[in-house]
Amino acid sequence: MATVTIVGAGLMGTATAWPLCDNGHDVRLVGTHLDAEIIRSCKDGGFHPRLKRQLPDGVRPYFREEIAQALEGAEIILSGVNSYGVRWIGRTLAPHVRPEHLIIAITKGLEATAEGDPMILPDVLASELPAPLRERVRIAAVGGPCIAGELAGRRQSGVLFGCRDGEAVERLAAAFRTSYYHVWTTTDLVGLELCAAMKNAYTVGVGLVQGILEKAGGVDAADARMYNLAAAIFGQACTEIERLLRAAGGTSSLAYGLPGAGDLYVTCQGGRTVKMGRLLGLGHSYEEACRIMAGETLEGAAIIHVMATVVPRLIARGLVREEDLPLLRTLIDILVLGRPATPDLDTFFGGRGRL
Amino acid sequence: MATVTIVGAGLMGTATAWPLCDNGHDVRLVGTHLDAEIIRSCKDGGFHPRLKRQLPDGVRPYFREEIAQALEGAEIILSGVNSYGVRWIGRTLAPHVRPEHLIIAITKGLEATAEGDPMILPDVLASELPAPLRERVRIAAVGGPCIAGELAGRRQSGVLFGCRDGEAVERLAAAFRTSYYHVWTTTDLVGLELCAAMKNAYTVGVGLVQGILEKAGGVDAADARMYNLAAAIFGQACTEIERLLRAAGGTSSLAYGLPGAGDLYVTCQGGRTVKMGRLLGLGHSYEEACRIMAGETLEGAAIIHVMATVVPRLIARGLVREEDLPLLRTLIDILVLGRPATPDLDTFFGGRGRL
Repeated sequence: MATVTIVGAGLMGTATAWPLCDNGHDVRLVGTHLDAEIIRSCKDGGFHPRLKRQLPDGVRPYFREEIAQALEGAEIILSGVNSYGVRWIGRTLAPHVRPEHLIIAITKGLEATAEGDPMILPDVLASELPAPLRERVRIAAVGGPCIAGELAGRRQSGVLFGCRDGEAVERLAAAFRTSYYHVWTTTDLVGLELCAAMKNAYTVGVGLVQGILEKAGGVDAADARMYNLAAAIFGQACTEIERLLRAAGGTSSLAYGLPGAGDLYVTCQGGRTVKMGRLLGLGHSYEEACRIMAGETLEGAAIIHVMATVVPRLIARGLVREEDLPLLRTLIDILVLGRPATPDLDTFFGGRGRL
Repeated sequence: MATVTIVGAGLMGTATAWPLCDNGHDVRLVGTHLDAEIIRSCKDGGFHPRLKRQLPDGVRPYFREEIAQALEGAEIILSGVNSYGVRWIGRTLAPHVRPEHLIIAITKGLEATAEGDPMILPDVLASELPAPLRERVRIAAVGGPCIAGELAGRRQSGVLFGCRDGEAVERLAAAFRTSYYHVWTTTDLVGLELCAAMKNAYTVGVGLVQGILEKAGGVDAADARMYNLAAAIFGQACTEIERLLRAAGGTSSLAYGLPGAGDLYVTCQGGRTVKMGRLLGLGHSYEEACRIMAGETLEGAAIIHVMATVVPRLIARGLVREEDLPLLRTLIDILVLGRPATPDLDTFFGGRGRL
């Protein structure tokens, strides 16, 4: 049995405590500066107010100030912060990390290098570690469709762990796997992270349709909605994820497996990313939509902004053609350039014509 | 402008009258023996009771007995029957079809040959035509996510037309395309038909989850549903469709485009196939579920029964491996062999382990 320290006591980070505890690990949960109230509640009565559940027996909660103690003797560190906290957690862990640590991050997002190349978040985290450690420490990531509340309810869930080090990812998977938390592994960390990020971006596209429908007067007298448009966007999203994976030299089958189509499906069932799409579809500018959704983490929108830099670079390097990513370019047009939210199906699937 | 005769006045067949009329074609709508009341209503006041809409101006309705008259001078014949009517329509059209006719079918389904090989419905239709015609007449099919009520409401819809004859499929696409009905084309008719059929079969799988959730007591105290399980099944469905396409020598990218992931997405939003899945997930046998859903067309279930014959044959021919289709085999186990509806995620994505 291992000692596992979860840093970040949000929904998903905390939910991983269930399989870890069921496997008999020593589990420690450290709040960030945003989680003080959560940790207070966990310390007082073992109740997580956002998950609305009692923590499993044996999870030990720690305030941010107690992180050194929480990391003492840990073999696995789980980063449970969101994309805005990746550099923070890198800097916070830096004094404590040793080469033998296994780090696994649940964060979904993407950054771009100064040259405009995509940079996955595990590499962003690593960039905050001291140089000698950076090359040696193994950082893994989680992808696939997993709503935190369901995992904490021990509902059947399937995810994909990725790490460039094959031995490390197998050890991590073995530590987390239970009868309800099914873990596959891959050494294609870049492919996994691209999928995890892009499905968030494309969910904004599927979400547009709710707003477009409302703007057009809603369901008509004969009950017609706009599922056909949403489905075409969904299919185009999967198609573009596959192309982006190929452009990045990744495992293209991930596009239609767990982290691509599977995760896109669950994210499109609702939540904040769909809500952002709806507001844009209604005709709000991105700035207005952000104001309306003040305080919510909008990783999908942030990823679209990153791709505004990455896509021209991919095209310039000959890795994709301009006509390969019409949906993503439409999303960039809407969010970054303030263009109207009117996706043109005739640009999808290689343009009107033969597939 | 062409004369187009639609045979079968159900939802989808009739809905194609909208783009056809908007393109200025002479459109005739022939009811089958099941559609007499619909045609009576259309003749009386131009109202289609199932679509709940006035037909576009210029659509001429015909009773089944008037089919010869309705086909006189037609250049395009659209088969609007469901999978149970494919042989009937072949026999019905046989005396009227000429080699220069273009036939296009909206029917989704699959049959198996005596040897257990899959047989797409356009070939089943052709098999009912006189031998000299069979080789010469061009039969096309439609795939992709298209709810009839939305098409009739002129909502944005994207579909894929397939025909082995590239010139024929382009002519058909040109006849149907409008600003809201977006038509792509392919000469991979088998791939298109496999997608269209299999997404119905796999929707039963996604639908199971509703029943499994209810059987487990429904949403729990902390609001957890079972989207994670549904999403894993969705991703596995796309993965298996891709494998089946490759096994059939089809265009594997269709699996994550319009007729695969796109159409699976829209079909999973609800309707009779999801309802069948729900009943099976609740623990009803297939026979009980059919009794409860008496009178509904259950193409997804019929396709699973066909695949019970086709899959062993594909394995025997070395085109797929047993472990390639765990979800489909689970569906066969449930529907055909009466096994419990408990999909095992550990069999998905190549089995527990590395992707």
